Amino acid sequence: MTALPAALDAELSALLGAEGWRTDEAARAAHGGDDSRRHALPDGVALPRDRAQVAAIVRACRPHHVPVVARGAGTGTAAGAVPFAGGVVVSFARMDRILAISPGDRCAVVEPGVPNAALQQALQPHGLFWAPDPSSAEHCTVGGNLACNAGGPRAVKYGATRDNVLGLVAVTGTGELIRCGGPWTQDATGYDLTHLIVGSEGTLALIVEATLRLLPRPVAQAGLRVFYRDAAAAAAAVARLMAQPQVPAMLEFMDRSAIALLRRNGSDVPEAGAMLLVEADGDHDILPLALQALAEAAQGEGLLDLDVAMDGAARDRLWAARRALSPALRGIAPGKINEDVVVPVSRIPDLVAAAEALSAQHALPIVVFGHAGNGNLHVNIMYHPEDAAESARAQAALEGLFAQVIALGGTLSGEHGIGVAKRDWMARAFDAPTLAAMRAVKAALDPDGILNPGKVLPPL
Amino acid sequence: MTALPAALDAELSALLGAEGWRTDEAARAAHGGDDSRRHALPDGVALPRDRAQVAAIVRACRPHHVPVVARGAGTGTAAGAVPFAGGVVVSFARMDRILAISPGDRCAVVEPGVPNAALQQALQPHGLFWAPDPSSAEHCTVGGNLACNAGGPRAVKYGATRDNVLGLVAVTGTGELIRCGGPWTQDATGYDLTHLIVGSEGTLALIVEATLRLLPRPVAQAGLRVFYRDAAAAAAAVARLMAQPQVPAMLEFMDRSAIALLRRNGSDVPEAGAMLLVEADGDHDILPLALQALAEAAQGEGLLDLDVAMDGAARDRLWAARRALSPALRGIAPGKINEDVVVPVSRIPDLVAAAEALSAQHALPIVVFGHAGNGNLHVNIMYHPEDAAESARAQAALEGLFAQVIALGGTLSGEHGIGVAKRDWMARAFDAPTLAAMRAVKAALDPDGILNPGKVLPPL
Repeated sequence: MTALPAALDAELSALLGAEGWRTDEAARAAHGGDDSRRHALPDGVALPRDRAQVAAIVRACRPHHVPVVARGAGTGTAAGAVPFAGGVVVSFARMDRILAISPGDRCAVVEPGVPNAALQQALQPHGLFWAPDPSSAEHCTVGGNLACNAGGPRAVKYGATRDNVLGLVAVTGTGELIRCGGPWTQDATGYDLTHLIVGSEGTLALIVEATLRLLPRPVAQAGLRVFYRDAAAAAAAVARLMAQPQVPAMLEFMDRSAIALLRRNGSDVPEAGAMLLVEADGDHDILPLALQALAEAAQGEGLLDLDVAMDGAARDRLWAARRALSPALRGIAPGKINEDVVVPVSRIPDLVAAAEALSAQHALPIVVFGHAGNGNLHVNIMYHPEDAAESARAQAALEGLFAQVIALGGTLSGEHGIGVAKRDWMARAFDAPTLAAMRAVKAALDPDGILNPGKVLPPL
Repeated sequence: MTALPAALDAELSALLGAEGWRTDEAARAAHGGDDSRRHALPDGVALPRDRAQVAAIVRACRPHHVPVVARGAGTGTAAGAVPFAGGVVVSFARMDRILAISPGDRCAVVEPGVPNAALQQALQPHGLFWAPDPSSAEHCTVGGNLACNAGGPRAVKYGATRDNVLGLVAVTGTGELIRCGGPWTQDATGYDLTHLIVGSEGTLALIVEATLRLLPRPVAQAGLRVFYRDAAAAAAAVARLMAQPQVPAMLEFMDRSAIALLRRNGSDVPEAGAMLLVEADGDHDILPLALQALAEAAQGEGLLDLDVAMDGAARDRLWAARRALSPALRGIAPGKINEDVVVPVSRIPDLVAAAEALSAQHALPIVVFGHAGNGNLHVNIMYHPEDAAESARAQAALEGLFAQVIALGGTLSGEHGIGVAKRDWMARAFDAPTLAAMRAVKAALDPDGILNPGKVLPPL
């Protein structure tokens, strides 16, 4: 039934019971993939109920050198949760409790399996929210957000996951529970293991509890949709928007290809070289002033058109174009390589130009959109996977993209993580001593290398 | 002249020249203390000019197991820069260049020796600022801010040092240069060594370059001075102030003792149980609305009086009370133990009550004030150092304070760091597995333990 050592199988079965320890084909198959469309069968699936069980799972696996792969909802795009080396997948589906919401301390304490959307819903009556809002928010879990340092459009004002975590309880590769940070927002006490573990994709520790920083939910939002002659004009506007004190609540970019795609699909957008969606939030008094400040900053050389949406319905129409984009991409080609690269904001025009050049060079549609205020753009290389030549060109375009991003002083991933998808590019993004330091930190917290092996760091 | 091995002395002399390598008594004495009033003589003082020299210093010291102690301006209060184990102090006084200011990317690249105030001055023409504003800002260096995760009143809105660093270049204990992060604000690429090294007080690596996150400088500020019946009423107001979307730009607390002290010194403040100083910032349109929102949140049960200061002069008068406090403390007693403890905001009244009880129990004045929005309060235990009995009572009060802070779910330091002053309390603030994880991380980046030995982590 399972390739695991019989003693380990028996130990985990005794620890977790029939509901908590699954080695049947169906359970294993259901816990082997993620949104990268890659898949590998684990040898067993553990569904712990509490932190003590998580620690016991790691302590049981360690003497057998059996991999332990943490899993949220499987919405990751970098294959970080795919158990290529087999072993035990630890699903946090049964550790999904909100343990505390403390409005006075503006924090919540949660187990990792809580879905992002469920947390937001529970916070609503308190007038609070948690900043991370990845596009998978309806399904993804807080644990997955923590593992990948998930972002989303709101990150430009409110930060990504790492910026919104105050403390963690986690199980290291030795099966010990560690506790770092806590319900406070300023801390100069010892090493910051909290932010180190966030974004480590389950390779340093398994998070079993998190204290999350909460923010007051703005009363109202309003938006702008602004069209520019070209990406350079839009990027200059991004710099102006980010240089004034009213930080936009969202600041999304779409390139010429994205706009053309929307127009072909019947969206109500004019022909333009680039588009920005800009959002303000605040209370009813301040909102019009904030929007005014953003509208002024959005204006400048190369502006073609600017629409204002002051209320909910108008705002929904304005954002409809952004939401229509991902489905529209499927109409171009069934295959999509979607990389969430990051460049300094000032280099956005260079990145867009590089994407256009790669599109021409490799004869493939490339669509660029994303979180302009953070320089975190999603570059979508579209191809037909069943066409071997096209697939090879898509890979070549991807290589070209990463090379350009690094040449522009950027980095590989802003919010999806490295997983295995970008792992082999790590040696281009970091020099050898820095990778060695990362490997040393990995060995410090996971001396036998059993936590999610083969992820994030390239093989030596 | 120096207790260092002759070969090392010769190597560092050849590397750094007469200006860069000092072993004379005067130079050693001048680089042995900090604002903790503790002092120890290093065996030599290195004043490198660039990162290559810093790396060479560490590589030279390592085979001799000679300690390497990084030093900014020596304004730290936890003796983090005091070379108790001798060895080489590395002063960054000659690495004080601002390498780049990039308004479009809202970041600056600096060497560690740049004074905080010099950086702020250089940013002013660009309409930008760097958030950390410790009270030593006129003298302290960015490198020191990074080492201690310095905060200040503005941290409540803009974050402390760790929240405002995007990337680092640093020299680890093996003498290798590592590069992490960069000029972008969203990053899911590998392990977050940047935030790990910030706040590690020179024990994991020597920072030789930092990319700092900059913010648009608000056009104007306005303030409120609010008096309450007691600390509980003020803390409830802090919770209300932090729960509405207009985050205060500063939110400072003073307890009954602090107010009484100001009154004795002739300050224009009424008798009250607690006081809050609340600041709003923004442009001229938004500022009055923001201040109005803060004033509404400040009102409630136990409010005695509320003053508004809309312009610069009125605001200066309002803050004069806060500035008068530290000098006034000297009038109570020459000795001051000033601990920057942190508790959850909801526990501020308990902390203030605990301080009052400790003051009565040990018959010593204890004055509490600080950054209420972050739960980061400065507890000042006043005593006469020449009086042995009083000194012993002050130590006992300090022990009692830390015990209370930990019992309240708080932690030892919000912005000063651990150094040696709070080191022996680390085993009370963290459990054994967490301390072991910190030790493992230390060993990963500094395998021979030569970087600032004896600091942060208690001896095994």
